Amino acid sequence: MAFGWIDEQARARRRAGLVRTLRPRAADSPLLDLASNDYLGLARHPETTGAAAEAARVWGGGSTGSRLVTGTTELHGDLERELAEFCGFESALVFSSGYAANLAAVTALAPHGSLIVSDAGNHASLIDGCRLARGTTQVVAHSDPQATRKALDTHRGPAVAVSDTVFSVDGDAAPLPELASVCREFDAGLIVDDAHGLGVLGAGGRGAAHAAGLAGAPDVVVTVTLSKSLGSQGGAVLGPARVIDHLVNAARTFIFDTGLAPAAAGAALAALRLLGREPERAQRARAVAATLYARLTAEGHEAVRPDAAVVSVRAPSRELALRWAADCRSAGLAVGCFRPPSVPDGISRLRLTARADLTDEQVERAVRVIGETRP
Amino acid sequence: MAFGWIDEQARARRRAGLVRTLRPRAADSPLLDLASNDYLGLARHPETTGAAAEAARVWGGGSTGSRLVTGTTELHGDLERELAEFCGFESALVFSSGYAANLAAVTALAPHGSLIVSDAGNHASLIDGCRLARGTTQVVAHSDPQATRKALDTHRGPAVAVSDTVFSVDGDAAPLPELASVCREFDAGLIVDDAHGLGVLGAGGRGAAHAAGLAGAPDVVVTVTLSKSLGSQGGAVLGPARVIDHLVNAARTFIFDTGLAPAAAGAALAALRLLGREPERAQRARAVAATLYARLTAEGHEAVRPDAAVVSVRAPSRELALRWAADCRSAGLAVGCFRPPSVPDGISRLRLTARADLTDEQVERAVRVIGETRP
Ligand SMILES: Cc1ncc(COP(=O)(O)O)c(C=O)c1O
Ligand SMILES: Cc1ncc(COP(=O)(O)O)c(C=O)c1O
Repeated sequence: MAFGWIDEQARARRRAGLVRTLRPRAADSPLLDLASNDYLGLARHPETTGAAAEAARVWGGGSTGSRLVTGTTELHGDLERELAEFCGFESALVFSSGYAANLAAVTALAPHGSLIVSDAGNHASLIDGCRLARGTTQVVAHSDPQATRKALDTHRGPAVAVSDTVFSVDGDAAPLPELASVCREFDAGLIVDDAHGLGVLGAGGRGAAHAAGLAGAPDVVVTVTLSKSLGSQGGAVLGPARVIDHLVNAARTFIFDTGLAPAAAGAALAALRLLGREPERAQRARAVAATLYARLTAEGHEAVRPDAAVVSVRAPSRELALRWAADCRSAGLAVGCFRPPSVPDGISRLRLTARADLTDEQVERAVRVIGETRP
Repeated sequence: MAFGWIDEQARARRRAGLVRTLRPRAADSPLLDLASNDYLGLARHPETTGAAAEAARVWGGGSTGSRLVTGTTELHGDLERELAEFCGFESALVFSSGYAANLAAVTALAPHGSLIVSDAGNHASLIDGCRLARGTTQVVAHSDPQATRKALDTHRGPAVAVSDTVFSVDGDAAPLPELASVCREFDAGLIVDDAHGLGVLGAGGRGAAHAAGLAGAPDVVVTVTLSKSLGSQGGAVLGPARVIDHLVNAARTFIFDTGLAPAAAGAALAALRLLGREPERAQRARAVAATLYARLTAEGHEAVRPDAAVVSVRAPSRELALRWAADCRSAGLAVGCFRPPSVPDGISRLRLTARADLTDEQVERAVRVIGETRP
């Protein structure tokens, strides 16, 4: 039977307790949310949602075509200009998702004959970008610039190093200054995915590259998502104008994909402007994460010191991680649960996300629930 | 210098007259639009845009996480249920784009050791899906079920055939019944991308698979986009519940991507309901395409007989295709211009899209402008 093999996989998943199911949430969920990536609490801010609504009314429900045909509106142009300016880059290009932006950056900047040096902890979308690119990928040890150095040293011809700025599973930051200087030794480009840095790291949330003094550098390309700190959907690539022009001409997930919906562009632009006016939100998200970490470790939990707004708490096993997360939920707290096979290192953890709009009381409540439900 | 090689490519593009540039449009563009994929004229319908606005207000600017964490709302569930029901499938799964839906379907259903038989005219997103999948891809002649038959006959083990239902460049339809029966000979699955069929083909726009009597079949998986007939953004995979469950557990562009923004889900759902109430829109889009084709060929243009709502008109050369499209634009008509390297066959054409809401007078005006600007 066609697709017959999937039933065996399904049985194996059931035996291993690894079945994933969708749990639709209501608009007024009573759960305390420490699972979303809405780091600045802007997804439901009236300025964000109002701008989404207004953009849909003015521009339509969709962008109606590839951005090279009918899918580019003045709204997309405004978003690109303001995003580039905010983060300190010459140009920006907006995509339908952060995933698509990563596929674009890696594939378009790693041609046949080039080398891609990819951190072992990189996000799935960067990994898929490496697999789609015509260049050859070498995966190197996590956050180890000397490993990147060694890999680059084996190659003649164009090369790029590719890394998350803040790794999505454990929330640890990449050593960007060291990575950049290693890349410069070899005239290699540096592509970093600032999905979890934008809005959280750098002055007023300008991101990890800005914080590292790399914004606007001719050899640095940053990808961001509009779906986390900016409370919307979509992604962007930031970099020198010549690189962005190249993407317009060469990136398949740009050329052959419908442009981002106006509502999403409008929401992201409104959130960006709000962040510009309220830069303290970035710092508050980091402070909430630091408090969560301090309180949890004080209570004897094993956690990773957060470099941004993700706090990763070790769980004793896959099964117990699942049960722990479920018990948190029953007690009114939504937390993420990352476990194999989504994590390459086989370690199961609760993944907490700090939001700038969490009150101190909510943080205490979260710590209490996590402690009380500890397996 | 890092990224130095892109300058040589940019020069080559300039020399060849192949530079692509973005042209942001205004909200009230005066152009007559025969370039967008808004086949039913629903992108700016007040019900669509009103639903987008309402969804943003109720659910937020973004879905805030992976659909497996916080990114699934009851709205996503409603959209999936109604989409599956409308198209005649057991289940549906919504993605952030049609591109992501295609990557998911192909990669998750073509495991290591399997064979993918892919039509030479397939869309870039299916091609990228084939390149990302662990299975081995064999590209076969365009719309040639016997070529698919031959390819399947070489392989033992799981196999799928993958095809657009309506090919995006020329608007010609795939021979679905023949493809399906060839697949059944070999117990192979059939994955078809109905991006340009949904809303246009089949009873009331239920799509090409429905029209071919394949809706709900256990061995058929359909991908659709929400960005064309449904006037929004996003994509979906339709199929048996067991296949959809498999995608939830295995498709990387589902697991590792933020859920579709509520505004886009709301807009698509409203458009779908509208189509359910006004099934004549589908037929009108096809009728407009047929009229365009008849009038253009009567005037001596060389065009491909449209099977859906895309009308492809041959241009004498790449340069003249570009000039022709530009002259149309100067005369108030927006048309698509497909040319190498976006088209694999090297043929340049104007690509016209029929919309259900075009008046007969607008169709006449389009034909007149295309004739007057003919190079
Ligand atoms: C590090 C990282 N990069 C990229 C993405 C993809 O972005 P998006 O969900 O906006 O497509 C994500 C998460 O979704 C992520 O965590
Ligand atoms: C045949 C086909 N499949 C898939 C897609 C991708 O869908 P989306 O643009 O919604 O990502 C497109 C066009 O954009 C298409 O023409």
